[in-house]
Amino acid sequence: MKFNITVLPGDGIGPEVTREAVEIINVLGEKYGHSFELTEEKLGGCAIDACGVPLPDKTLETCKSSHAVLLGAVGGPKWDGLPGNIRPEAGLLGIRGGLGLFANLRPAVIYSSLKEASPLRADIVRDGIDIMVVRELTGGIYFGKRGREKTPSGSEAAFDTEMYSTEEIERIARVGFESAMKRNKRLTSVDKANVLESSRLWREVVIKLSSEFPEVSLSHMYVDNAAMQLVRNPMQFDVIVTGNMFGDILSDEASMITGSIGMLPSASLGNGTLGLYEPIHGSAPDIAGQDKANPIAAILSVGMMMKYSLGLESASQDVETAVKNVLDKGYRTGDIASKGTEVIGTRAMGELIKKEI
Amino acid sequence: MKFNITVLPGDGIGPEVTREAVEIINVLGEKYGHSFELTEEKLGGCAIDACGVPLPDKTLETCKSSHAVLLGAVGGPKWDGLPGNIRPEAGLLGIRGGLGLFANLRPAVIYSSLKEASPLRADIVRDGIDIMVVRELTGGIYFGKRGREKTPSGSEAAFDTEMYSTEEIERIARVGFESAMKRNKRLTSVDKANVLESSRLWREVVIKLSSEFPEVSLSHMYVDNAAMQLVRNPMQFDVIVTGNMFGDILSDEASMITGSIGMLPSASLGNGTLGLYEPIHGSAPDIAGQDKANPIAAILSVGMMMKYSLGLESASQDVETAVKNVLDKGYRTGDIASKGTEVIGTRAMGELIKKEI
Ligand SMILES: CC(C)[C@H](C(=O)O)[C@@H](O)C(=O)O
Ligand SMILES: CC(C)[C@H](C(=O)O)[C@@H](O)C(=O)O
Repeated sequence: MKFNITVLPGDGIGPEVTREAVEIINVLGEKYGHSFELTEEKLGGCAIDACGVPLPDKTLETCKSSHAVLLGAVGGPKWDGLPGNIRPEAGLLGIRGGLGLFANLRPAVIYSSLKEASPLRADIVRDGIDIMVVRELTGGIYFGKRGREKTPSGSEAAFDTEMYSTEEIERIARVGFESAMKRNKRLTSVDKANVLESSRLWREVVIKLSSEFPEVSLSHMYVDNAAMQLVRNPMQFDVIVTGNMFGDILSDEASMITGSIGMLPSASLGNGTLGLYEPIHGSAPDIAGQDKANPIAAILSVGMMMKYSLGLESASQDVETAVKNVLDKGYRTGDIASKGTEVIGTRAMGELIKKEI
Repeated sequence: MKFNITVLPGDGIGPEVTREAVEIINVLGEKYGHSFELTEEKLGGCAIDACGVPLPDKTLETCKSSHAVLLGAVGGPKWDGLPGNIRPEAGLLGIRGGLGLFANLRPAVIYSSLKEASPLRADIVRDGIDIMVVRELTGGIYFGKRGREKTPSGSEAAFDTEMYSTEEIERIARVGFESAMKRNKRLTSVDKANVLESSRLWREVVIKLSSEFPEVSLSHMYVDNAAMQLVRNPMQFDVIVTGNMFGDILSDEASMITGSIGMLPSASLGNGTLGLYEPIHGSAPDIAGQDKANPIAAILSVGMMMKYSLGLESASQDVETAVKNVLDKGYRTGDIASKGTEVIGTRAMGELIKKEI
């Protein structure tokens, strides 16, 4: 089969981890006889430098006409001083909105060989952590009306609007329920319904939809409690579904308790099969270009892409298995090194995983 | 000296932990020759049952004319089905707003004798955790305009407004800087300035105010990163200052990493010295009335009251020392029990702490 994939290396360590991920795409193509057509475009800081905007029209158009998008990472101190609308992050929000990618899937998983990397006590981590956070990605306070105005007393005020419609809630809740059906059939919907009206509607819609998924055991949790429970007993969670802002916070917290941010991929999906795949780590400008970055999150993002956008289940499985095997053999990049393991660079890690496939 | 203190026992375990805290107030009165006039009022579920509203006018009036307010805990499943505006939580928000208590101080501290209770690895907790979270309490999305409306397509939508004025930000930031001056002179301001306009104003105002506190080293952190850093390396924090919603999430997360929610007090302050003091734990209806609840958070809340509202530094110190001594002697309530310690009930714990004073 023939697939068009847009590659957005981005900034900082983005290009070097993306390079390894692209190698994996190519070797999967050879193995299964698929033709992957890769087109590189600019997003983020590099796009600001080259075109003056973080999301050039050409980038968005190319993404729209492809089967999947692979993103490295965007941002860096170089562009921090710019106004909000032309910062690298605006490119990220723009592409999410522009491609209608309303569902962000963020697995927080600990590989058994990396259990000690978790900042949590061993008796809490036990056999591992395996949570899927489903975050709404194109609504809520990220995309609501915002601005500045004068207060009655004449001073300045700024506002942002958290807004969710029934449709927006239902479609993301559906992704949550469907994810739960493929896993352990437990769904935790996180909101702040004791304070927010948008959360009260959120809860109503989730409850209503639950009748379509009688096998899923649904529970509701306030966001402050969820932030606590992730640390106290992460094993209680299977799938978490929540809004954009709470999802930003909780998915990062869930990632951190695995202890290996450099290992975690993500998928952002819309109504069709087009999806954007990216490591959850940032652009880490401090180690960029030094062959130190961990390419595993980028490589596992390719694994997610094979499964969710291209429907290539066994290619996806290959990626997972290859990563697991290399870790089991004791190879590590610096960020996940521990006593008795062998530290290698970005390129070498990519090569070893490729060989396993 | 003569002080009026309003006591709001509330629901669930509220009354029993408050009872021990009141005993501590009385013994401090005897020791230092102060006269503490205690007036009991209703707030939360018990007020709904008795008066039909979670915050009766009489309660608010009594609080307004006192030097300090001691609160137990509010809420419980009995009142969960009620509409938002007459639920126990509405009483809590009402009293915060009604008394103008815009600054919530939430210490997250581990006592050395309770270090193993932390869910974090021992090498991360090291000598302990000692963070002060300063949360804005009467603004932001908690108090902004909210409602429902029809979308253009005719379906339902709900919204909430996050709004902050320069004054609101400045006064809470000032509390943050002042707290830092009394501690290790490091302040982390948490926002989401890469997305939210209210966060951009927040950051501007905090930066401007920092010139008045040249000794404080100020840093800014995005809320998603803060949620990660609290788990990865909590020792990096001294004082955290943030808005109402982010503060709700982060202060609970910070509390949980100490591993002993039953130990943590809080203070809510306004412009004058009037303050409201309460344990951060909830009403725990499942163990109410069983002499199992840990009264230490309520008792330490009395300690904060002595210091922040009544200016009685040595009485405050007495409370802290008494709690530390009882813990060092190996006494524990069930929630903080560990091998080799002696488990006692609510009353016995209160008695032991009182004896130390
Ligand atoms: C960079 C920022 C706008 C973004 C977000 O908050 O969505 C990031 O934190 C993420 O989670 O992908
Ligand atoms: C009960 C609830 C409204 C409240 C809040 O969110 O402020 C609570 O979580 C707290 O932090 O005191």
